[in-house]
Amino acid sequence: MTQPIETDVIVVGAGPVALFAAFELGLFDMHCHLIDGLDRPGGQCAELYPDKLIYDIPAIPSISAQGLVDRLLEQIAPFRPAFSFNQLATVLERPDNGGFRVTTDGGVVVDGKVVVIAAGGGAFHRKGPARSTPPGPVADWGLTLNGNLICADTEKFETSAPGIFAVGDVNTYPGKLKLILSGFHEAALMTQAAMRIVSPGRRVPFKYTTSSTSLRKKLGVA
Amino acid sequence: MTQPIETDVIVVGAGPVALFAAFELGLFDMHCHLIDGLDRPGGQCAELYPDKLIYDIPAIPSISAQGLVDRLLEQIAPFRPAFSFNQLATVLERPDNGGFRVTTDGGVVVDGKVVVIAAGGGAFHRKGPARSTPPGPVADWGLTLNGNLICADTEKFETSAPGIFAVGDVNTYPGKLKLILSGFHEAALMTQAAMRIVSPGRRVPFKYTTSSTSLRKKLGVA
Repeated sequence: MTQPIETDVIVVGAGPVALFAAFELGLFDMHCHLIDGLDRPGGQCAELYPDKLIYDIPAIPSISAQGLVDRLLEQIAPFRPAFSFNQLATVLERPDNGGFRVTTDGGVVVDGKVVVIAAGGGAFHRKGPARSTPPGPVADWGLTLNGNLICADTEKFETSAPGIFAVGDVNTYPGKLKLILSGFHEAALMTQAAMRIVSPGRRVPFKYTTSSTSLRKKLGVA
Repeated sequence: MTQPIETDVIVVGAGPVALFAAFELGLFDMHCHLIDGLDRPGGQCAELYPDKLIYDIPAIPSISAQGLVDRLLEQIAPFRPAFSFNQLATVLERPDNGGFRVTTDGGVVVDGKVVVIAAGGGAFHRKGPARSTPPGPVADWGLTLNGNLICADTEKFETSAPGIFAVGDVNTYPGKLKLILSGFHEAALMTQAAMRIVSPGRRVPFKYTTSSTSLRKKLGVA
């Protein structure tokens, strides 16, 4: 077997919400490995409409979809997340150590303590005209679904399986809107719950990037 | 009595979350009137730390607090929200027409169909060293509180009083984080519920600014 890659958080997907999840997780010292079926970061934004302008990202009056992805990549760079592209996450296992093991169709094996599904429509649907793949295998992971969507709570955005979270367009809950900005919020709340799994017992006071020297140090701007 | 100002949505507060609420409400054709105790938009960002840098606004690797406010003002400009500055919202009434009437300490009277409390800490607390005012009168409006915070649901971010919503740092719910990005999400979900009150029976399919000509027209970019 391929030597497993070790990480804290296995992120399925590499679209805007997956990227921002890597930022929030990074702020709280969790390393991520992102797995995506496309050949580069950005998900549908990069694949289906890179030049289209988006007008409803808060405080960004206008930005191209690719521009949004580029800004997110710049923002998460200090945390050096790892990526496996051209890989579909297919098999989910629970090794004896209590964590998770995700294996891809290309034979990449990633071990982590938490799984975050942030795969947009890509986890279940065809990737669209630009790239046609079969429905994603995440549908077979035994999570409670509502139609094609993964049910998540609104406190932690955890699925029916403890330790597996779902953020962005792939999840559903009362009031859900498929907005990128909602995925950003979901990623922030998920991060607090992920931290309690990755570092049980650790007490991290909630801090702001405007005033915390330790956060600014992590971002390389102290 | 002063002639009442008519609007669709009375927004208490004019900080970043209040401003983005005006954007979301504007996208769905609702006009806002924002009321704030400070003398300009931006809330604590503009008043307490305009030059401090914020690093965790999604897709904005670094921006000053005042810069964030300026970008939001640019983004909401197409919707021409109205502002009353240097005014504390003090009295809330329910006129016979089923809407709401908010009166300020300076005698401004605003009538609307929905009230959104987006006043950050400012609704209850002193405004900080820069401007010391008594605890806000919103605490006397009979809403269910948890400590100093207004309880809101996570589907519509409605308070215990139908038609009165609470978004941003002023609200609380399971998992709540006092992050600006969470307030943005809350404003988007609140908007869908506000629309059902302001325009009952109107069916508005959910659209994206990337692909909807009608939305782009409202934004002046069609």
